[in-house]
Amino acid sequence: MPNISRAAGSIPASAIRMLTPFADQAKADGVKIYHLNIGAPDIKSPESAVKALAEFSFDHLPYSNSAGTIELRKAMVEKYYPKKGIKIGLDDILMTTAGSEALSFVFHAAFDPGDEVLVMEPYYCNYNTLAKMNGVIVSAVHTDIESGFAVPSPETIEEHITPATKAIIVCNPSNPTGVVYSKKDILAIADICRKHDLFLISDEAYREFCYTDEPYFSVMQIPDFEENAILIDSVSKRYNLCGARIGCLVSKNKELMTLVTKFAQARLCPPVIGQAVSLAAIDAPDSYFKAVREEYIARRNYTVDALNAIQGVYSPKPQGAFYTVAELPVDDATAFCKWLLTDFRLNGETVMLTPAEPFYSTPRQGRNQVRVAYVLEIPELEKAMKILETALETYKKI
Amino acid sequence: MPNISRAAGSIPASAIRMLTPFADQAKADGVKIYHLNIGAPDIKSPESAVKALAEFSFDHLPYSNSAGTIELRKAMVEKYYPKKGIKIGLDDILMTTAGSEALSFVFHAAFDPGDEVLVMEPYYCNYNTLAKMNGVIVSAVHTDIESGFAVPSPETIEEHITPATKAIIVCNPSNPTGVVYSKKDILAIADICRKHDLFLISDEAYREFCYTDEPYFSVMQIPDFEENAILIDSVSKRYNLCGARIGCLVSKNKELMTLVTKFAQARLCPPVIGQAVSLAAIDAPDSYFKAVREEYIARRNYTVDALNAIQGVYSPKPQGAFYTVAELPVDDATAFCKWLLTDFRLNGETVMLTPAEPFYSTPRQGRNQVRVAYVLEIPELEKAMKILETALETYKKI
Repeated sequence: MPNISRAAGSIPASAIRMLTPFADQAKADGVKIYHLNIGAPDIKSPESAVKALAEFSFDHLPYSNSAGTIELRKAMVEKYYPKKGIKIGLDDILMTTAGSEALSFVFHAAFDPGDEVLVMEPYYCNYNTLAKMNGVIVSAVHTDIESGFAVPSPETIEEHITPATKAIIVCNPSNPTGVVYSKKDILAIADICRKHDLFLISDEAYREFCYTDEPYFSVMQIPDFEENAILIDSVSKRYNLCGARIGCLVSKNKELMTLVTKFAQARLCPPVIGQAVSLAAIDAPDSYFKAVREEYIARRNYTVDALNAIQGVYSPKPQGAFYTVAELPVDDATAFCKWLLTDFRLNGETVMLTPAEPFYSTPRQGRNQVRVAYVLEIPELEKAMKILETALETYKKI
Repeated sequence: MPNISRAAGSIPASAIRMLTPFADQAKADGVKIYHLNIGAPDIKSPESAVKALAEFSFDHLPYSNSAGTIELRKAMVEKYYPKKGIKIGLDDILMTTAGSEALSFVFHAAFDPGDEVLVMEPYYCNYNTLAKMNGVIVSAVHTDIESGFAVPSPETIEEHITPATKAIIVCNPSNPTGVVYSKKDILAIADICRKHDLFLISDEAYREFCYTDEPYFSVMQIPDFEENAILIDSVSKRYNLCGARIGCLVSKNKELMTLVTKFAQARLCPPVIGQAVSLAAIDAPDSYFKAVREEYIARRNYTVDALNAIQGVYSPKPQGAFYTVAELPVDDATAFCKWLLTDFRLNGETVMLTPAEPFYSTPRQGRNQVRVAYVLEIPELEKAMKILETALETYKKI
């Protein structure tokens, strides 16, 4: 029997999806599950996107350019990014099969096996798998729930740089903590990258979901940083078109983009119908994001207050994205999350959460924490929080 | 300035797409180009697929399961594969973003950097890039145009195995040669894999496009070969839905599938609208492929005859897929293909071909060869062949 990859064989299962089989079993048993485990919001897509799909027709469906359709790239360069204060050219952007593929490309293009990428923990756990697919080691700077996962000082970040460090990656706003990096934070990290000749990879999938009044500051707005800046972006997720799988990779580093283009050509092209729908989504009026933002602020406020009202639970108040990391009065949140699916029901219902431990690189950190995605309407969130409270009471007695 | 990946930096540009900028320039100058360079056929998709898209509606578009929708996996397992004599279970199949992603997964799951994959050259050149993304070395067994790229003897194949060889990959029918591996060929290669503990990776994207009367024999039909067999399949390409980007990876090797599932979870899911359209395409009646097959046989017969009627040109007669590799009376087919785009016009038209050299690993092989994709209707192919003939006459005088 042939052996599978030794290097990849050590990759852990996705924290976000590893409990899915237990959820499927519970559903098969007729249990209703409130899904706070995954960032799959119930918010509507823009009308322009819905209309574009209704009007899309074909007799056969050819490939697009490997870098994406020229129409979509133009819309990003000429319509979307200028509104965000980001100035790029057509050669600086390559459309991808969602932000995930853009991440995969960058882990293969900017690193060699054995290189390190530095990230603030807790961090989006799929970075680990996507990095390990090219033998890249994720090295973490710890941040604390007590401080609301505050961005560490530049000195602390710099202490973690080793000769193997090739890049720093930030998720801004952060999945899972909801932390938003200020302009000052980003400029300080950029200075470190300049000094140590590192790429700064910024995952800005949640750019539109910021709940403070401070203007958002993108990696592409850092002055004199063209060779170092890599933007990982989502298009489809931003417009609640998660299943359309459209994102992009943006950089002014020509050498990097030339290599990424080779990867893109080898996989032919991103999904074509998704590109057409995404193109139309970009025409969504400003009122679309305004309404979405208000809805998320209300959901966040409700969720954070409800969590903190449960005895022994603590959640900081996230400033962006649609997640929060909360501490629970349990020893092992993974066991608790599994138990919620396998054993606990309140009137035939339960709640699904994501254990936070796999979002940390430091061993045993986050063991009593969970990631909560506030992606349901408030009446649903109310039911989910009631279930969580009752479950915690029951759990401490067993 | 940070350095890009040393390992990946050596990857060559895609042979299939590297001439695209010259084609774009010619088009901008008003030149009509007959595209025989890329396997993007003009054949219609099944009516069921067109109808499914017309009926697809959403208010928001969530993710699917990482392994693909259960409906699509069931349709493959219960409807499509049984017709082909392939018996698999739901756990043996994982839907991917086209065959390309399935290939990328397998190059990461079945190999470590430095491992070798053995392939008969000329071979689909994107194997190189997808393999090199995990540091996998493509090692080739040469086949000759004079023999019609006949499958080498088992002894010849076995001579190329080294301690670093981890798998043999076959493309059956072959892109670019159109060679179809017989049952005897596949069983002989399987014996070699058993003996040396290798995976046999079979890229069967062109399974429906076989023009001999011999029944097709899949890697999944080899007896007692469960741990070694890996099937790379396309769904969207088969139904002329190239842009939908849906394929799959099939294997009964549990360890491999467990690892591939982790990769799949890290990238969340394949395109959802493409999955819905592909699901409907599977319902295409048998008459759909029958008509497509007849059309390709006619196109192949026309193209091969027309090529061989040109002085100094030789093409074997391919038995499958929709490509042929032809020898031209030129020293450097890459320079000729570029010249066709930059300098040659016949009544304001030209033809685009793919140089075959990058389909070889052995240096300087295939220098005077091109890959011709017979993906246009015969009247268009007639014009393209006339242009090629005139171009070759002109080229030998300069």
